[in-house]
Amino acid sequence: MALPFQALFLGPAGENAQIVEDFILEALRDHVFWRRNFHPEDGPFIRESDKRSEAYDATLMRLRQELYYLLSRLKQGAPLFSPRYIAHMTSDVLISSLVGYFAAMLYNPNNISEEAAPVTTELELEVGMQLARLVGYGPQAWGHLTSGGSVANLEALWAVRGIKFFSPAAAMVARELDLPEIPLQRADGQITTLQAMTPWELMNVPLDAALQLRDTLLRMPDPRVRRRLDACSLASRGMLGFYRAFEAAFGEKLAEPVLLVPATKHYSWVKIVDLLGSGREQIVELPLDEHYRIDPQAFRGVLDDLNESQIPVLSLVAVLGSTETGTVDEIHRLLEVKNDAKLKGIDFYCHVDGAYGGYATARFRDPQGQWVKGPYDRASAASFEALPETDSITIDPHKLGYSPYPAGAIVFRDQRIREFLNVEAPYVFHDGDDAHTTIGKYIVEGSKPGAAAAAVWINHRVLPLDVTGYGALISNTISCARMLRDALASHRSPEGMRLLPLNDPDLNLVTFIALPPRIESHEELNRFNEELYRRFAIQPNRRVFSYEFLLSKTAFDVKKYARGLHARLDPAVWSMLDEGRPLTVLRSTIMNPFTKDMIEGGTFFSELLDALDREMRDAYALVTEKPRISPAPAGG
Amino acid sequence: MALPFQALFLGPAGENAQIVEDFILEALRDHVFWRRNFHPEDGPFIRESDKRSEAYDATLMRLRQELYYLLSRLKQGAPLFSPRYIAHMTSDVLISSLVGYFAAMLYNPNNISEEAAPVTTELELEVGMQLARLVGYGPQAWGHLTSGGSVANLEALWAVRGIKFFSPAAAMVARELDLPEIPLQRADGQITTLQAMTPWELMNVPLDAALQLRDTLLRMPDPRVRRRLDACSLASRGMLGFYRAFEAAFGEKLAEPVLLVPATKHYSWVKIVDLLGSGREQIVELPLDEHYRIDPQAFRGVLDDLNESQIPVLSLVAVLGSTETGTVDEIHRLLEVKNDAKLKGIDFYCHVDGAYGGYATARFRDPQGQWVKGPYDRASAASFEALPETDSITIDPHKLGYSPYPAGAIVFRDQRIREFLNVEAPYVFHDGDDAHTTIGKYIVEGSKPGAAAAAVWINHRVLPLDVTGYGALISNTISCARMLRDALASHRSPEGMRLLPLNDPDLNLVTFIALPPRIESHEELNRFNEELYRRFAIQPNRRVFSYEFLLSKTAFDVKKYARGLHARLDPAVWSMLDEGRPLTVLRSTIMNPFTKDMIEGGTFFSELLDALDREMRDAYALVTEKPRISPAPAGG
Repeated sequence: MALPFQALFLGPAGENAQIVEDFILEALRDHVFWRRNFHPEDGPFIRESDKRSEAYDATLMRLRQELYYLLSRLKQGAPLFSPRYIAHMTSDVLISSLVGYFAAMLYNPNNISEEAAPVTTELELEVGMQLARLVGYGPQAWGHLTSGGSVANLEALWAVRGIKFFSPAAAMVARELDLPEIPLQRADGQITTLQAMTPWELMNVPLDAALQLRDTLLRMPDPRVRRRLDACSLASRGMLGFYRAFEAAFGEKLAEPVLLVPATKHYSWVKIVDLLGSGREQIVELPLDEHYRIDPQAFRGVLDDLNESQIPVLSLVAVLGSTETGTVDEIHRLLEVKNDAKLKGIDFYCHVDGAYGGYATARFRDPQGQWVKGPYDRASAASFEALPETDSITIDPHKLGYSPYPAGAIVFRDQRIREFLNVEAPYVFHDGDDAHTTIGKYIVEGSKPGAAAAAVWINHRVLPLDVTGYGALISNTISCARMLRDALASHRSPEGMRLLPLNDPDLNLVTFIALPPRIESHEELNRFNEELYRRFAIQPNRRVFSYEFLLSKTAFDVKKYARGLHARLDPAVWSMLDEGRPLTVLRSTIMNPFTKDMIEGGTFFSELLDALDREMRDAYALVTEKPRISPAPAGG
Repeated sequence: MALPFQALFLGPAGENAQIVEDFILEALRDHVFWRRNFHPEDGPFIRESDKRSEAYDATLMRLRQELYYLLSRLKQGAPLFSPRYIAHMTSDVLISSLVGYFAAMLYNPNNISEEAAPVTTELELEVGMQLARLVGYGPQAWGHLTSGGSVANLEALWAVRGIKFFSPAAAMVARELDLPEIPLQRADGQITTLQAMTPWELMNVPLDAALQLRDTLLRMPDPRVRRRLDACSLASRGMLGFYRAFEAAFGEKLAEPVLLVPATKHYSWVKIVDLLGSGREQIVELPLDEHYRIDPQAFRGVLDDLNESQIPVLSLVAVLGSTETGTVDEIHRLLEVKNDAKLKGIDFYCHVDGAYGGYATARFRDPQGQWVKGPYDRASAASFEALPETDSITIDPHKLGYSPYPAGAIVFRDQRIREFLNVEAPYVFHDGDDAHTTIGKYIVEGSKPGAAAAAVWINHRVLPLDVTGYGALISNTISCARMLRDALASHRSPEGMRLLPLNDPDLNLVTFIALPPRIESHEELNRFNEELYRRFAIQPNRRVFSYEFLLSKTAFDVKKYARGLHARLDPAVWSMLDEGRPLTVLRSTIMNPFTKDMIEGGTFFSELLDALDREMRDAYALVTEKPRISPAPAGG
């Protein structure tokens, strides 16, 4: 039986305030009395007479004054707790994580090392393994929290790069030290040797074979092997130095590997390839089908082209829950294409950006951890079922995990992958370091709150990662999104304006445009939807409590989204669109489980559609009759 | 008058528990009643009858049960609140930030955009400007919070790289589009033109000239200029593509720029150059003087060598408060050398890693923000005074700002620097984006807790960034560290063992080794100090409340620390050391202001030295008589 949401959240009207108060006080007092047990002979340090001093009093006064000031400023914050907030990918958090975060924050642990945070680093690694089990990875997996999904993606790609260039580095070392022949598997499954491989083959060594190769080399008794492997690595030489050395050693130029991402191309990937020094030119966008998912057939074509040009692939990035539309890529079909490519000699890493949708895997796990088709079975179920075959997954507790920021996470299928992130050279051994509990040396950040780990940990204890827990919670919101899509599609305003949904929700996101009867151009359509958006988006100079509903917006690249748009729009609307101009789209994320109550109570759609009608009318007047009042954005 | 610490912290025995309780409850209730004012006609969503259900009750039971389990696990956490915790760079936080964090966390803001976090993004930018003013940057500065110091350093270096390669990219574009001559300043101050510059000159364009050049180019009416600048940038082409294009355009090879860091070389720099694809080989270590500061004379020599080999410099990294010894580099002297180098045609960026020591600048600011020599004047005062001449500074509120994790920060002298981090191409204009309040597009992270901004903001309101506030607090701990250093130096154990301080604290860190009378080798000395450390460090299988004191350790590279070690150690000890072996060093960070009370009460040193004597005796027996019980670490 699913857990009742009524007991899990503070509530849109703070209905569970008393419970939260009790728990918060319990955590605070528990901590305070804990303090008193460490060398009680020392204290107290603050005497009651200190508290009677004028300076003490003045400081407290200041503290209280500033707290009131802060509290008053916070009141202009976004009402994420309300079912009427259906804008961004953010929501209220679970009571458990709110209390867990606060309880652990009192200890101020920094999860960069177990010495500074003996408890919360353990909790973090437990959470990492829970998420690994959720997605179907085995006991050799490894996972941890990050400051967010972007940093998790960065960490994954940083590891991938180290792996991709490991085999070529090993080949240089083998040649330099004249090592005996070392067996190594090619992409097509044939066993050859490290020394016999061509540069192209070296750039296509399967992940497991590369990990095995590293183990083999590091176990060699000759200490020069480890030292030279380190010195010849990409981490040591950098991109420029590595390529120069490689070309000198092999006498041929090698193309730089590319990153394959869906054409929706979240901006974090642009940032990541820039950061890593690869450059945006190394991003290859995979075309989308009519559901805005990567088109497997087009993916196959891209791989063939790359093979022909002998351009290696760093990684495929598939997405579970895109930022724009919450779309879930068909991972099973993409993996099929990837497997077929192996026979042609092409192999690469597969990373899944499940920052948003990763937790939705709980919809397919029973309480025993077994896979269930459940009542939620749709095309995307097969995508989630294929996750165990991927190499790493970003999955953010601070999104559909309903935990406070900052809590991103990354899980790797094989813990040996993290060694490519290790800043310590492999020939440096440290005594006493338990590799399993030292997080700091494998990650991007140099500090991280242990409180975040406590928050996620207690959430997973209270709300299980299966159909009875997160599965039920997330399914609730997906069903709301589908109802919203249908309600928008069937609505007609008194003035004949229409709301055109642009996606069939894989998760809990709905996108749509509002279409008045006499819109004549793409530009006018955008202006109208921008104006409409403005009326449902938090503005600096408008009281936050004056909104009826909160929506967000996004922009579709018409060319990239063409198949999905063409399939959904009337020919008249479709023919109005200009491929070179982004299409402004309204976007709604439903994460609040109480939205369903409001829908069932009958008020949600009636009020939302009323509000949309009213604002559409006003926006239409503004945009079509007095266009000069709200000028178009300056062109670039 | 300085604020009393007694009113600022929860207290080692939770003496201010009642105050914290009051404030936390105030914040919670304030938030709850705020919720009820948003569409009160909707609620309540959770009815009292729901609360009577069996499922509700079972869920609450589960929540309470798991909270108790979490609270019991947390009790094995490190006692950071105690004056006896003198180990890592971490401590109790200020009451204001604890309450501020909690108050804002209830709103769950994500500071990646002002739409999701209208209030806390404002607070974050206010905090950024407060820190900028603290270090002496002007109103054109820009700063924000990061997940920590490592990410702040990464962000700075990412910007620096974009700037370094901007002028060469611009030269390529100018040639390609046959632009009119554009005046540009050389490193030596002479004005020439972009088109007339040699590749070497292009890699040494002063920062301000490069920023000006960008402004000039982006203002050109020909839209091709912006498009080609973007396409030819390092962000677009990546390291490999950029160098290939550059060499093709100029017909000569160009050395890759190097990063100059102190020989202490914090591991975050190794990580950063790896991440950025530059490679560890591009790190040049600057030799240390007898205070473990960068030796300005040696710095001069390094620059001359680089000039001779025509190797450009990406950035100088000077450190305010090194991780090992809390050492403050002599920034004023380094800047002198840097200025002299300009005349030889070499110019580069100057980043300061003040993650730890940045807040100590408050020791030199009066309440009006004016510079004061104050009672704290030492050699390092001049270093802090030179900060306005640097280009960016990392400064972490979650270290000497006494704020909860995660709260690192970066401040840039000139806000135009951030444009080199912008993932949006410069030819894309967005309407409605207020550049001043959109943090997300300029930073590494993709999500960040607004609560951290509220915490730092209220801390700065309660405890001013001047001699009456943070200045006094930090000075208190520095004086403790100096007393600790002296107490260690003058101590002799009954068995004739000595404690040898290895640094004269610039900030609040003391390093030392324990030296028994009959130690015969470097290896034995390390084993002894490792064993001693183990007795003051949190171990997985020892009750955390069984410790007398908590210490940390570090390792000195004997060769790099040679001048300081040679100056401080007896010739007999010095001659025992092996340059190729790290020296295990005990390390104490004093951040707790109540440590001073315990020192003045007379118990701190007597108990600490007693504990050290007792453990030295035991460790000595173990290490010298039964060495096989504790084997040496496996050699690499």
